[in-house]
Amino acid sequence: MTIAVTRQGAPVSKTSHADAPSPGGPEAAAPGGTVPDGTVRYLRIGDLELESGARLPDVTLGYESWGTLNADRSNAVLIEHALTGDTHVTRGGSEEPGWWEQLAGPGAPVDTDKYFVVSINILGGCYGSTGPSSTAPDGKPWGSRFPLVTLRDTTEAEARLADALGIRSWYAVLGGSLGGARALEWAVSYPERVQRCAVISVGASSTAEQIAFAQAQTLAIRLDPNFNGGDYYGGPEPEAGLALARRIAHITYRSAAELDGRFGRNAQDSEAPLEAGSLAGRGRYQVESYLDHQGNKLVRRFDANSYIAITEALMSHDICRGRGALAEALAPATAAFLVAAVDSDRLYFPAQSRALAAALPGEVAVHTIQAPIGHDGFLTEIGQLNDQLRQHFFG
Amino acid sequence: MTIAVTRQGAPVSKTSHADAPSPGGPEAAAPGGTVPDGTVRYLRIGDLELESGARLPDVTLGYESWGTLNADRSNAVLIEHALTGDTHVTRGGSEEPGWWEQLAGPGAPVDTDKYFVVSINILGGCYGSTGPSSTAPDGKPWGSRFPLVTLRDTTEAEARLADALGIRSWYAVLGGSLGGARALEWAVSYPERVQRCAVISVGASSTAEQIAFAQAQTLAIRLDPNFNGGDYYGGPEPEAGLALARRIAHITYRSAAELDGRFGRNAQDSEAPLEAGSLAGRGRYQVESYLDHQGNKLVRRFDANSYIAITEALMSHDICRGRGALAEALAPATAAFLVAAVDSDRLYFPAQSRALAAALPGEVAVHTIQAPIGHDGFLTEIGQLNDQLRQHFFG
Repeated sequence: MTIAVTRQGAPVSKTSHADAPSPGGPEAAAPGGTVPDGTVRYLRIGDLELESGARLPDVTLGYESWGTLNADRSNAVLIEHALTGDTHVTRGGSEEPGWWEQLAGPGAPVDTDKYFVVSINILGGCYGSTGPSSTAPDGKPWGSRFPLVTLRDTTEAEARLADALGIRSWYAVLGGSLGGARALEWAVSYPERVQRCAVISVGASSTAEQIAFAQAQTLAIRLDPNFNGGDYYGGPEPEAGLALARRIAHITYRSAAELDGRFGRNAQDSEAPLEAGSLAGRGRYQVESYLDHQGNKLVRRFDANSYIAITEALMSHDICRGRGALAEALAPATAAFLVAAVDSDRLYFPAQSRALAAALPGEVAVHTIQAPIGHDGFLTEIGQLNDQLRQHFFG
Repeated sequence: MTIAVTRQGAPVSKTSHADAPSPGGPEAAAPGGTVPDGTVRYLRIGDLELESGARLPDVTLGYESWGTLNADRSNAVLIEHALTGDTHVTRGGSEEPGWWEQLAGPGAPVDTDKYFVVSINILGGCYGSTGPSSTAPDGKPWGSRFPLVTLRDTTEAEARLADALGIRSWYAVLGGSLGGARALEWAVSYPERVQRCAVISVGASSTAEQIAFAQAQTLAIRLDPNFNGGDYYGGPEPEAGLALARRIAHITYRSAAELDGRFGRNAQDSEAPLEAGSLAGRGRYQVESYLDHQGNKLVRRFDANSYIAITEALMSHDICRGRGALAEALAPATAAFLVAAVDSDRLYFPAQSRALAAALPGEVAVHTIQAPIGHDGFLTEIGQLNDQLRQHFFG
């Protein structure tokens, strides 16, 4: 379902939290408001000078938090979401299950009874932060005018939110996939503000292949007749394009073995992939129906322009840009690192995690999540890191 | 450039052979015509009952040949092209280089001075065979009405062409990728007509992941505003959709290491991927420009509906359908087999070739093409099989 928040400065958001209360808008932004744990709050962080040279005015960040910041402000943990993720890491006061419940919650490694856990919707997103669907100063949605944001821009924005919450230094910053890239960027951009950093299922930069798959996805959205150069708000949305983008992405999130084991060459229900009369239509294979479902599910909860904006931010992921070779770029980081990868990941290859770990200061091992599923193991199998996380970070 | 052949029964084709003489149309179909080696001829093979139950009337196949069929008709070799391939395997009388010159030609393993070499444009294609751009009996292009064809349909059509050429049994049938699937289907559908069979860079069936990537490609074409359900002939063509399909495919044809080694995160020339003002436009990474080029190159030489038709034929690739388990399905084949795979192939995994080889009758080894390029090594590195081919097939 779509919840449109049209108050000044607040984003027009789609959300999957059908039962969540309406977001409060920026007036609910003050830290320590009455919003329960695990529901979205908003903070206005002012104008942002972007890496591209553009200026994004009056930026709002959506975030959720769980638990309480202690007196010496030493127990704050930041959990960064992935490409189409949101801030709802775990339940808290909400009934809606979170996407990393194995990792965070009461009694979990990131124990919300002990730590003050924060999750921030990435700049450019559609879950509370300023993005292409937000209202620009002229009162119209940003649309095609939304500027390119990089992971350094998003990190700078998040540092301002940390300032506002009174968090000088994070006890830990954790994330997987894009979230891992965000975590790593934090540890390098603000070494003194990150004490521990878990970088899961992502390397030190987006590779040519990752950029290539990303381009195909953004082009799928741009190809949709409803896209209108990005200015589709108020009209039909580029749903078919977004669904195709998601299909492409989802294939790369799963391993060939996983898809083949689940679906093989089976036909979907009573559909007949070989009995069509013509090119205009035929029955589907099960794996096609599955990907249709994945695509259509995302369309109901995500803005296509945000998909482009965040995908391009992920393309920008390069810890070395302007910082020298890899080891040199990473040298300023003072955090203790935990690096992990899924053994069957065919998009963010474990070798990329190994290269990152080898270049990080000190001895950093790569913890291997063993799962046939592929990249998405960073979500479904994160529990495999519980021991390592407790031992190294949250003991 | 586009060569439109509008005589009755002949396909409307795009061709990359800009300098080739205009195709002669079906009246040049008789075997032994005066068309020089390495130029397209046409043969009308009558109506075809398809696996789907549909009937395709008055089918034409485009083909090229090189060399001379000997008196006892024992020296005929069939070379099957891949997804967007054509019949131009090697030069012959044409100046245009072929796509498997390392394999076929005077003095090559498939020596055209010794063997009568034939290559057939796949049914559904746009290089001479009846396809969606061909004229239907009502005088209009088939377009959306073109029936789904399977690899068994295409093989049956080719068997009729072999009949017409007087070839009772092929000395050898060879192919890579889709061409390998076509070769395998020949060996199983017509065991008595295939004495030797080389199946390169493809397994015994299209897997769920291969179907998934294929679906994304066909959806990209269908998403193009110019697609018009497949009935776009005479109007603007779905070029952007076809180019996107090709980009997706091309990523899967190359290895991550190859793309990263060639392009890394470099910007294209003076373009600036991070200095765009807005979502509406930014500079490209080199790999994006490269894939743009690959997409645009295909658009100039290939029909979008044929891309869908052949992709769906490849989806249908399943040597087991209606034939039992793999070893049982393969048991009737009497050919000597040569199976090969590219070690870095991330689309048609070498393990799939190993599984095929293990299930084939007799002892069949998998010859590994060692090349970092990925799947496309079956084209660029085919010379690595020369020794094996000479030793086992063409000594």
